Amino acid sequence: MSKYCIGVDLGGTFIKFCLLDEQRRASDIFQLPTPATGAKDVVAQMVAGSRQAIAKRGLSVSDIVGVGIGSPGPLKISEGIVIALPNIPGMDNLPLRDLVCKELGVPGVLENDANAAAFGEYICGAGAGHGDMVLLTLGTGVGGGIIIDGKVVQGSHEIGAEIGHVIVEPGGEKCGCGQRGCLERYASATYIGQWATRLVREGRASSLKAVLDAGGTITAKDINEARKAGDALSTEVWDQAMRYLALGCVTIARMLDPDEIVLAGGMTKAGEDMMAPLRKHYADLHWTLTPALTKLEIAQLGNDAGTIGAAGCAWLRLGGK
Amino acid sequence: MSKYCIGVDLGGTFIKFCLLDEQRRASDIFQLPTPATGAKDVVAQMVAGSRQAIAKRGLSVSDIVGVGIGSPGPLKISEGIVIALPNIPGMDNLPLRDLVCKELGVPGVLENDANAAAFGEYICGAGAGHGDMVLLTLGTGVGGGIIIDGKVVQGSHEIGAEIGHVIVEPGGEKCGCGQRGCLERYASATYIGQWATRLVREGRASSLKAVLDAGGTITAKDINEARKAGDALSTEVWDQAMRYLALGCVTIARMLDPDEIVLAGGMTKAGEDMMAPLRKHYADLHWTLTPALTKLEIAQLGNDAGTIGAAGCAWLRLGGK
Repeated sequence: MSKYCIGVDLGGTFIKFCLLDEQRRASDIFQLPTPATGAKDVVAQMVAGSRQAIAKRGLSVSDIVGVGIGSPGPLKISEGIVIALPNIPGMDNLPLRDLVCKELGVPGVLENDANAAAFGEYICGAGAGHGDMVLLTLGTGVGGGIIIDGKVVQGSHEIGAEIGHVIVEPGGEKCGCGQRGCLERYASATYIGQWATRLVREGRASSLKAVLDAGGTITAKDINEARKAGDALSTEVWDQAMRYLALGCVTIARMLDPDEIVLAGGMTKAGEDMMAPLRKHYADLHWTLTPALTKLEIAQLGNDAGTIGAAGCAWLRLGGK
Repeated sequence: MSKYCIGVDLGGTFIKFCLLDEQRRASDIFQLPTPATGAKDVVAQMVAGSRQAIAKRGLSVSDIVGVGIGSPGPLKISEGIVIALPNIPGMDNLPLRDLVCKELGVPGVLENDANAAAFGEYICGAGAGHGDMVLLTLGTGVGGGIIIDGKVVQGSHEIGAEIGHVIVEPGGEKCGCGQRGCLERYASATYIGQWATRLVREGRASSLKAVLDAGGTITAKDINEARKAGDALSTEVWDQAMRYLALGCVTIARMLDPDEIVLAGGMTKAGEDMMAPLRKHYADLHWTLTPALTKLEIAQLGNDAGTIGAAGCAWLRLGGK
């Protein structure tokens, strides 16, 4: 009889579940709403979803090797504790892993959601069959995960892979983290929109002004579309963002020399509109001592990466092999 | 009877040898001249030195688990091949590891010299007893090595940990590697001297002019001494170099969150003259979401790090535990 690990990915709106078999094949992916009512309800929903996943396959708890839980940070990963989760009451210093595991009756692991997503892409997505991998998720911020020798790099204080806060412009834009010139400040979807907004408000001519005039918010998608329609400001912002992202990729390549850097998040819906300028800048900025051996690729699992990776982390740490 | 690994560190002038016991205690460190006459003589010297190390302790070949060879790159590490070594004839595509091992009659490993030095500091020096560690060697260039989970990070194409080529100033100074704004270009001993020289030649007032007028070359040491005597240009160059180095350290902390970043190389002879401004800039540039958990420390093993680390790599990969 096959054995499985359960993956649970805690998001702000949904909790996502999956089963992952010993051959790292994912199945039975579904989601339930994230209760906003408190920690107890979140734990209950995680347990209910896990039981649903087990029942769907006609399995019993004895078929489950463990449960992997991906959660937004900050966390104490090795202790299984959520330090804080601003949008849900009662989540401060919550021993989430142990609460879920005790109720389910299986062992578990907690992992940072960005690390879990990276591991998901590594085992089942863009990284499958490849060597070391770094994931960059371009969304509200820039998140990341690093996989070396088949394992998630968590760092000595469990705050590693904060690639959005690699400094790409010394003395540059102030970041919410307290640093200046963070990659996140130049290449996340949110900041690209804010950057274009600032330039338009400073009086630069752009078709994007219509978005603001209509009371809207300029998005990365707006910028890409305006760029394709010939808007000069949008072309400049998009290109600069891709240049900073490429700078970050060169720094990753020099430091870790991974097989692949995988790009994920909403912005990657732009596909080649994003990858073509990114690859061009990466080639321009990259050293000439070797070809650019670290490849840039788009993620394949979308929002499923986190739950699959969480289950994968459970296999890795609880599966005994 | 104790078992040992032999460490061999190939330098441009000397080949350094040591023995490392199972408890990772180093002993019998000595050096022999590096023959400039050709690959055959280099191999013979490595074998002769290894035999001396064995004989010194009254050991026999059966007491030796393996030999670890540290060599300047470029290398094919896993194949044990030196791709090129410009200063010695016949070193192109040389299967150095296998030639030495065949002659000695023990298994061996080849490792990049900077990685070996990092591993040496990790097992016997500034990193001993700590978690993940990154070594930065400030000399002619800026070299590096990364130790995660007790192992050297080599990268998927064996060109990882090139931390001197992390980009700290986009569009900045051209580096020999083909990139612009590399850390090496702003924080190596060589480039700090060149930077001060350029400023003096551009007409900036400085007591360093006397060095050039006497036909000399401005060194990092000259700059530090002039700075301490109140020279403004030297103060500026030294401080900017420490700022860029601190920027590199912040990027390392964000990406890998190691326990320690260990600084090595000639420049660290400046001791607190270097570490005090470095730590100040590091604190200034570091995020405020957590304290600066990654510590900056000076290396402890000097030129012995490479041979000790090479022997340590042999233990790691050949010792079976």
